[in-house]
Amino acid sequence: MAVHSAPKSSARAKVGVLGASGYTGSELVRLLLRHPNVELVLLTADRRAGQEMRTVFPQFSPFKLPKLVSIDGVNWKKTALDLAFCALPHATTQKVIGDLLAKAPKTKVVDLSADFRLHDIAAYARWYGHEHHAPKLQHEAVYGLVEVHRAAIKKARLVANPGCYTSCAQLAVTPLLKAKAIAPDEIVIDAKSGMTGAGRAAKEEMLFSEVSEGFHAYGVGHHRHMAELDQELSAAAGRDVTVTFTPHLVPMNRGILSTIYVRGVGGKSPQDLHAMLSETYRAEAFVHVLPFSEMPQTRHVRGSNLTFIGVVKDRIAGRAIIGAALDNLVKGASGQAVQNMNLMLGYPEATGLEQIALFP
Amino acid sequence: MAVHSAPKSSARAKVGVLGASGYTGSELVRLLLRHPNVELVLLTADRRAGQEMRTVFPQFSPFKLPKLVSIDGVNWKKTALDLAFCALPHATTQKVIGDLLAKAPKTKVVDLSADFRLHDIAAYARWYGHEHHAPKLQHEAVYGLVEVHRAAIKKARLVANPGCYTSCAQLAVTPLLKAKAIAPDEIVIDAKSGMTGAGRAAKEEMLFSEVSEGFHAYGVGHHRHMAELDQELSAAAGRDVTVTFTPHLVPMNRGILSTIYVRGVGGKSPQDLHAMLSETYRAEAFVHVLPFSEMPQTRHVRGSNLTFIGVVKDRIAGRAIIGAALDNLVKGASGQAVQNMNLMLGYPEATGLEQIALFP
Amino acid sequence: MAVHSAPKSSARAKVGVLGASGYTGSELVRLLLRHPNVELVLLTADRRAGQEMRTVFPQFSPFKLPKLVSIDGVNWKKTALDLAFCALPHATTQKVIGDLLAKAPKTKVVDLSADFRLHDIAAYARWYGHEHHAPKLQHEAVYGLVEVHRAAIKKARLVANPGCYTSCAQLAVTPLLKAKAIAPDEIVIDAKSGMTGAGRAAKEEMLFSEVSEGFHAYGVGHHRHMAELDQELSAAAGRDVTVTFTPHLVPMNRGILSTIYVRGVGGKSPQDLHAMLSETYRAEAFVHVLPFSEMPQTRHVRGSNLTFIGVVKDRIAGRAIIGAALDNLVKGASGQAVQNMNLMLGYPEATGLEQIALFP
Amino acid sequence: MAVHSAPKSSARAKVGVLGASGYTGSELVRLLLRHPNVELVLLTADRRAGQEMRTVFPQFSPFKLPKLVSIDGVNWKKTALDLAFCALPHATTQKVIGDLLAKAPKTKVVDLSADFRLHDIAAYARWYGHEHHAPKLQHEAVYGLVEVHRAAIKKARLVANPGCYTSCAQLAVTPLLKAKAIAPDEIVIDAKSGMTGAGRAAKEEMLFSEVSEGFHAYGVGHHRHMAELDQELSAAAGRDVTVTFTPHLVPMNRGILSTIYVRGVGGKSPQDLHAMLSETYRAEAFVHVLPFSEMPQTRHVRGSNLTFIGVVKDRIAGRAIIGAALDNLVKGASGQAVQNMNLMLGYPEATGLEQIALFP
Repeated sequence: MAVHSAPKSSARAKVGVLGASGYTGSELVRLLLRHPNVELVLLTADRRAGQEMRTVFPQFSPFKLPKLVSIDGVNWKKTALDLAFCALPHATTQKVIGDLLAKAPKTKVVDLSADFRLHDIAAYARWYGHEHHAPKLQHEAVYGLVEVHRAAIKKARLVANPGCYTSCAQLAVTPLLKAKAIAPDEIVIDAKSGMTGAGRAAKEEMLFSEVSEGFHAYGVGHHRHMAELDQELSAAAGRDVTVTFTPHLVPMNRGILSTIYVRGVGGKSPQDLHAMLSETYRAEAFVHVLPFSEMPQTRHVRGSNLTFIGVVKDRIAGRAIIGAALDNLVKGASGQAVQNMNLMLGYPEATGLEQIALFP
Repeated sequence: MAVHSAPKSSARAKVGVLGASGYTGSELVRLLLRHPNVELVLLTADRRAGQEMRTVFPQFSPFKLPKLVSIDGVNWKKTALDLAFCALPHATTQKVIGDLLAKAPKTKVVDLSADFRLHDIAAYARWYGHEHHAPKLQHEAVYGLVEVHRAAIKKARLVANPGCYTSCAQLAVTPLLKAKAIAPDEIVIDAKSGMTGAGRAAKEEMLFSEVSEGFHAYGVGHHRHMAELDQELSAAAGRDVTVTFTPHLVPMNRGILSTIYVRGVGGKSPQDLHAMLSETYRAEAFVHVLPFSEMPQTRHVRGSNLTFIGVVKDRIAGRAIIGAALDNLVKGASGQAVQNMNLMLGYPEATGLEQIALFP
Repeated sequence: MAVHSAPKSSARAKVGVLGASGYTGSELVRLLLRHPNVELVLLTADRRAGQEMRTVFPQFSPFKLPKLVSIDGVNWKKTALDLAFCALPHATTQKVIGDLLAKAPKTKVVDLSADFRLHDIAAYARWYGHEHHAPKLQHEAVYGLVEVHRAAIKKARLVANPGCYTSCAQLAVTPLLKAKAIAPDEIVIDAKSGMTGAGRAAKEEMLFSEVSEGFHAYGVGHHRHMAELDQELSAAAGRDVTVTFTPHLVPMNRGILSTIYVRGVGGKSPQDLHAMLSETYRAEAFVHVLPFSEMPQTRHVRGSNLTFIGVVKDRIAGRAIIGAALDNLVKGASGQAVQNMNLMLGYPEATGLEQIALFP
Repeated sequence: MAVHSAPKSSARAKVGVLGASGYTGSELVRLLLRHPNVELVLLTADRRAGQEMRTVFPQFSPFKLPKLVSIDGVNWKKTALDLAFCALPHATTQKVIGDLLAKAPKTKVVDLSADFRLHDIAAYARWYGHEHHAPKLQHEAVYGLVEVHRAAIKKARLVANPGCYTSCAQLAVTPLLKAKAIAPDEIVIDAKSGMTGAGRAAKEEMLFSEVSEGFHAYGVGHHRHMAELDQELSAAAGRDVTVTFTPHLVPMNRGILSTIYVRGVGGKSPQDLHAMLSETYRAEAFVHVLPFSEMPQTRHVRGSNLTFIGVVKDRIAGRAIIGAALDNLVKGASGQAVQNMNLMLGYPEATGLEQIALFP
């Protein structure tokens, strides 16, 4: 067949995806193939090096893409990427990016792992059980939740793309903590994620037969995303915030729904909280606040870069229930990463992110 | 084919299922067909009257069952049921049972609807928007959560089988409230149910294409099960209890998981709460408390009459996260109903309820 | 939020979707919202008239769309559509389109129903049980499978968009019948479809709990799509062709996979058949033939307008097994319809159809 | 909790499950725990040796079961099993059973692997790529499809439990081939299986995110089950039979549906074929032939040991479409194995297999 292509602009940035054989990698390729300002020039996948992308993700069969190569074989200087997306496993990442930026210091990097998200290197060591391998880069890294840190991201060389669970919760809670509108010590976040959030590694507990037709919590009381939540929510509140957070797995591919229980303070009613969120996101391209009393559904944002937020009054006076839904592979990972890239390279923020949710 | 049958005892109770064309109805038939002390002599289904059960539920194709009839055509006196299961829609139920017990006062009844669950007739009118149609019977009705009200159930003529969400939450929370071990004003119940909980009525929002591959909350802030929760938890606590309760729909058929956030009082640690639950259910046939720090999964109770309960320490001091899982059609409805029948008719409580969970 | 939009060209066609509350309707809106040459000016939905599209399909909540109106209230002359997509139920369609074209004869129409697909009005009456309501328009209608009838479609005013099952089978078999490379009397088409193919009408047999975790055939021996298959495959073969065709329902939302059993004639081997299909579709934008011996998967075309075709050698000499996969809502319905629109209005054929499959 | 148990008879057979950590192993445990004549005394699982069964399959948490041990540590003579179920991977099996029967020659064995299914050792070597490790035992082994080989199974020491796909197809086709009622050279078997058929090994292609929301064929043209089909169908027909057979994977846990295309010979109509199947299975406990023109669904046999068969007339004269559905883990594996055990140990054939399908 003759490959049809979306119109591409003449001057395009040279972009690479490190770790293209996982789900965030393929999602980056899906988005970047249709991005008018991007030329995909490098795809790495160590265990699949030498193979075509189509053997790893057959949906790309009709498209022309660079062959998968091993990271070790890449000459960063010669490849001269304008921007690299790093979708590698935890820990490896710090070394790879350290090496890349040493050899090609003008390349910009969006890292999708958790490796550069924690500003406090001691907190990193505590949660991850080993010393940080690139502490200097950590100081440089900007936390990449665009709606909160847009200005810093525009000037950043290295952006730490936020986690999916934490993005979802932060978008709902951060504006309320900043405004001191809710009690910081009584936040309960009950989060539910689709299976792609667990990645593509072949583990027994991720088999279809294990997880279909059922529902369960995991990592209760000690999930690593908590460190990231603590950091960002504390920054928003201007004091230490520790939330109760329970992640669950839903038998579906994509989507996170966070059901968040909060108590208004300073006389703030659920309606007030709703009004504050609506105002905060009025001019944002990717956060949509539903009418008061409506709750979001993951299926309505699937495949899009959108977050839907809803606020409902609890029957207990003063308490509100906030729902936030996003696609963990898009706004919770690769779409957010492209949004960061757009800012870092000076493109309009929404470029290449216009996909409308695929429902049903 | 020749139908194989489980051994049946010689003296069997004559039992009927009113409303056999819904999911709780078919689940009753599944359990009763293999119950050694029961003879199924009546199946009603108004819209399918005159049809064989196999046209409504083809899984019963090999089995000999009474033809479906209309309730209006049943002569209660002549039929002389020992026990009737009533799996009819809300409101209809009060009239049908009133009529049945007027004509056949010796028949015992297990009602699976919400019609007789609220002791307070004013609360009923408030939540359901109309006066109760059988207030006298309401006074007679016993709330049928066996593990809480066993003694009363044994002597009851009319048992109100509890709701699926409320059963799940009560089994986890009631013993702790009775013991005044948790703060009654800070209970958050985040509940997730499979789709069979919504019944078999053909509604757009229940279509496969609408609900697969997604997750959402519903009835937030105003779900009717709250009235039942209020009643039972307040009774347990010896004071008014109002909980925060949010139900969600999971793209799976069977199962409820309640994630329950509580705070210990009187110095009770999460480990203490776990020990109290373990002790409460030590001799129970159908409630299993997992080792401390393990959380239950709905798939491990699917098709069985079991409830699995787990307790985990939250990272916020004093707080615990309790998980409770059951199959909404079995322990959450028809299995619970058979358990009630066993007590009411004097059979060993677990008779006919030995099914082991179907996983995977 | 501020709605981001894809770039739109200055001169845009005025387009309407009749029947926007069903799945093919919403899929048209998904595609047309991002089509650079289209302005969506009319959305009808009789039972939801007066509502916003967002109440019917919440995924469109952030987007500006015309309010849903009733068809009866539309002034076709005044509305002056350049093109109308008709996604209405069978039979209604003939009357609506008859009326529309009488009043606005310059409007072009792509009809997604089965109403104008059968050239032979007698065959229509036989399969559908009533006389055709617009026989004159039937003579004008062009069967809209672009890869087979491209030239005629470019000149057409009324195009009958093909059925999903038949599109899938035809793309695989038509070139081989035309070339007389397979035996026309020994074709077996075993087809499997996702649930969206059954539409959005609330029927018991389409409920999640009825269709999840299971698989079954339906309409065996007498599915209406057979009439369309007979017509098109006979035309391709130049003689009467009657195939064996069995549709099945898969517990998934989107996708059709046809497994087609054929026997080569005139010495044609499976490899020869593969070569012929590859050559036929070499320059096509939306049909992709996989390397010999690879079979397609529905998930790799989900959300895209692509059809993937694979050919494998059977172990019985001379026989081949052909697999064809497409997304029933895109290439099997709304994407195909936009492809037709592009030809009818003179746009490049692939405009607005560049979506890459959403996997996982 | 207090474990409730089904009544057990006083004299029980000592039974072991070799390979208890896979799905057929856990399914055996589910069935045997409730079998009145069986005492489960041995569970092996090499990689999980030393663990409790509940850590591998939490649904067994409330039940008392032997701890998992390594096969190498079992003293076969001392353990003195009456019967061993062998649910081990291919090839290992031949060695283990050879060793077991050498040391405990009175133990009976039901083997669920493919290792002893092929009578022809040369065919085995051809399909599996290595010499058979226990050719003498192969000569002794009886092929364990009860409905076809009941008499031989009753006297057997070693039974080769049939494959799931082949059981499903044979039950539908064998009686017709025996009666020479269908053309042996024109049989097309299009088979669809749930994911548990692929086992519990952690492979990327079996992850939830890979297989949900999609459908595909696999092993097209060269699936190993073909050897078993060839053997059994040829035996039935009294001549060589080679069928076209294509397996597919359905995003569900349990169930196989075979859609089988046949042509009647000797004037046999589809109705005649239906009558012959009905007569063949009239007295069978586990094969149910639906009324003519009805097709079976996998969901209606889920969790039961039943096979449902349906026959429909094709619109091509003389051709019929036969559907057969079973649960691949029950009648397609562990239920069939228990049925074999019952015959081998002299219990009524249906003992412990009375479970009714779990639908929805």
